Amino acid sequence: MRVPFAEVQRVLKEALIRRGCPEDVAEQTAREMTNNSLEGVYTHGINRFYSLIKGIDGGFINVHGRPVLVERFAAVERYDGQMGLGVPNALFCLDRALELAREYGIGLVALRNTNHWMRGATYGLRACEQGMAAICWTNTVPNMPTWGAVDPRLGNNPITLAFPRPQGHVVVDVAMTQFSYGALELAKLEARQLPMPGGYDEQGELTTDPVQLMRTLRLLPMGYWKGAALSIILDVFAAALSDGNSAGEISKKFNNNFGVSQVFIAIDVARLVSPERAAEIADQVVEDVLGSQPVEEGGRVVYPGQRRLEVRAENLKLGIPVNERVWSKILSLGEGGA
Amino acid sequence: MRVPFAEVQRVLKEALIRRGCPEDVAEQTAREMTNNSLEGVYTHGINRFYSLIKGIDGGFINVHGRPVLVERFAAVERYDGQMGLGVPNALFCLDRALELAREYGIGLVALRNTNHWMRGATYGLRACEQGMAAICWTNTVPNMPTWGAVDPRLGNNPITLAFPRPQGHVVVDVAMTQFSYGALELAKLEARQLPMPGGYDEQGELTTDPVQLMRTLRLLPMGYWKGAALSIILDVFAAALSDGNSAGEISKKFNNNFGVSQVFIAIDVARLVSPERAAEIADQVVEDVLGSQPVEEGGRVVYPGQRRLEVRAENLKLGIPVNERVWSKILSLGEGGA
Repeated sequence: MRVPFAEVQRVLKEALIRRGCPEDVAEQTAREMTNNSLEGVYTHGINRFYSLIKGIDGGFINVHGRPVLVERFAAVERYDGQMGLGVPNALFCLDRALELAREYGIGLVALRNTNHWMRGATYGLRACEQGMAAICWTNTVPNMPTWGAVDPRLGNNPITLAFPRPQGHVVVDVAMTQFSYGALELAKLEARQLPMPGGYDEQGELTTDPVQLMRTLRLLPMGYWKGAALSIILDVFAAALSDGNSAGEISKKFNNNFGVSQVFIAIDVARLVSPERAAEIADQVVEDVLGSQPVEEGGRVVYPGQRRLEVRAENLKLGIPVNERVWSKILSLGEGGA
Repeated sequence: MRVPFAEVQRVLKEALIRRGCPEDVAEQTAREMTNNSLEGVYTHGINRFYSLIKGIDGGFINVHGRPVLVERFAAVERYDGQMGLGVPNALFCLDRALELAREYGIGLVALRNTNHWMRGATYGLRACEQGMAAICWTNTVPNMPTWGAVDPRLGNNPITLAFPRPQGHVVVDVAMTQFSYGALELAKLEARQLPMPGGYDEQGELTTDPVQLMRTLRLLPMGYWKGAALSIILDVFAAALSDGNSAGEISKKFNNNFGVSQVFIAIDVARLVSPERAAEIADQVVEDVLGSQPVEEGGRVVYPGQRRLEVRAENLKLGIPVNERVWSKILSLGEGGA
């Protein structure tokens, strides 16, 4: 079934307000989660809403928590997220990084004790809308082994890199696992296999079965040793710059994906090169990529960020595709109250 | 054979001076390239020296080129590398980023019209030696296809992320191909196969043969679509922030790896968290990773940056392992002159 944007947003917002969320953070959370589904990132939109509510009901997320400034020096700032809602906390810190970038050309905000920011691209794209480039990442609860190991001690620590481009922002949003946990959940929900092996099953063999992978958590890092190394260094940066929890500490304290650490870097492109020239160069890169020869005749090559615009246009017209079971669970949240 | 550090450095420096390099840039280039071999990165040390000299002799590298300031605003600066030697140019810009970070907490320097920086970790580690964290990357001549395509239009665009840690810096240095071109060259030199498929052969089949891969240039991006997306966005950032060449432009202008664009971001960790606390958190992450259960009993798990220290200690003691053919070619450079 398909549900219009405004209807999804209204239902999510009401469910949050029934949980005691203040109006503004309920609005931000509902809007961004609906937008994630609108742009085709269902795993970090509607499909994750029920587990967000469980996080609130379980007392892990404090709906009244707001970022509190801990440290500041010129272009860098550090906040404590007070275990508040992940989306409004991250929006706040990204906006601070944008203000710092406007003042200094570049700005960095580190955030500790926050919660799941849902979709990294949300923050990259928000920067792009203001003509800024951004690099933002989060750590997570451990969900993959490091290279050569069996026990999950690394987070998949998603990172977004985004560069503004009037004809369509170039935006990358990748987790350090070959497949994000969200991608596994979606494949499981749709009862399909992954397009290539995502990790090891209980017998230690490579498998494309999302159910097995969610059981073993022996996920393959993106690019094997490379993704493992990147996960480790992103964790060090996020935890140390914020004086917050590392993946290991998240596991010890919560045994779940709460109390994470994040970094937001914004760059005011116009301080280095005119927006026209920057757009021209970004266009050059995009056009060069799109001019590639596809592996199969009639095959398609895209630039990072292209599909989101297409899915967005379609879902705005037809409504957002919603899994009926997921949707009825969310509707019942609205009815029952906390 | 093994050659002592000082001897390698002296030979490289003399060869550069015979090519007309000023003393200081010859010294920096020889020192860092020797150091790369010392730390086990042979592909970006001695083994690449002959092709550096060819770049000078071919007129692509201007040994008198020095970075010239083009644009500056508070914590961000932009330079033109004047097609100078890649190592001294990158050292200069990293040092500027460190100075900006000291002043503003974070600093960014974009550099255009420069040449191969050799090894990314050189710059990450240099930042760490001053207690700073760094994120630096370069674009390159196209050497892999984007995901779903056959013709090489993306650079492998290596990135380094480094965080200071008194007990051993955590440093990642990865190219966006599953195997760097240097890794292919080394495997070819040692006449061995890659440990897993690195791309497609002339029949369009996955292969572990470095010779085939150097011929087709159909290299696999690290993590398939993820590495391709990262390569594209790193190229957009580097080319647009520096107003320099994108991978496509490098190919059009030089059909070789010259005139590249780079970004250097430095972060003064101590402005956000005390060095003691930052080290404690970095230690936590490292110890957590090292406590992993290896896949095979007695197997070994390492943190990013660990092996370099071990190889460094061994090579300092025993001398740097040098391929005799490569070494005699370099020695003949010194004798012959330009």
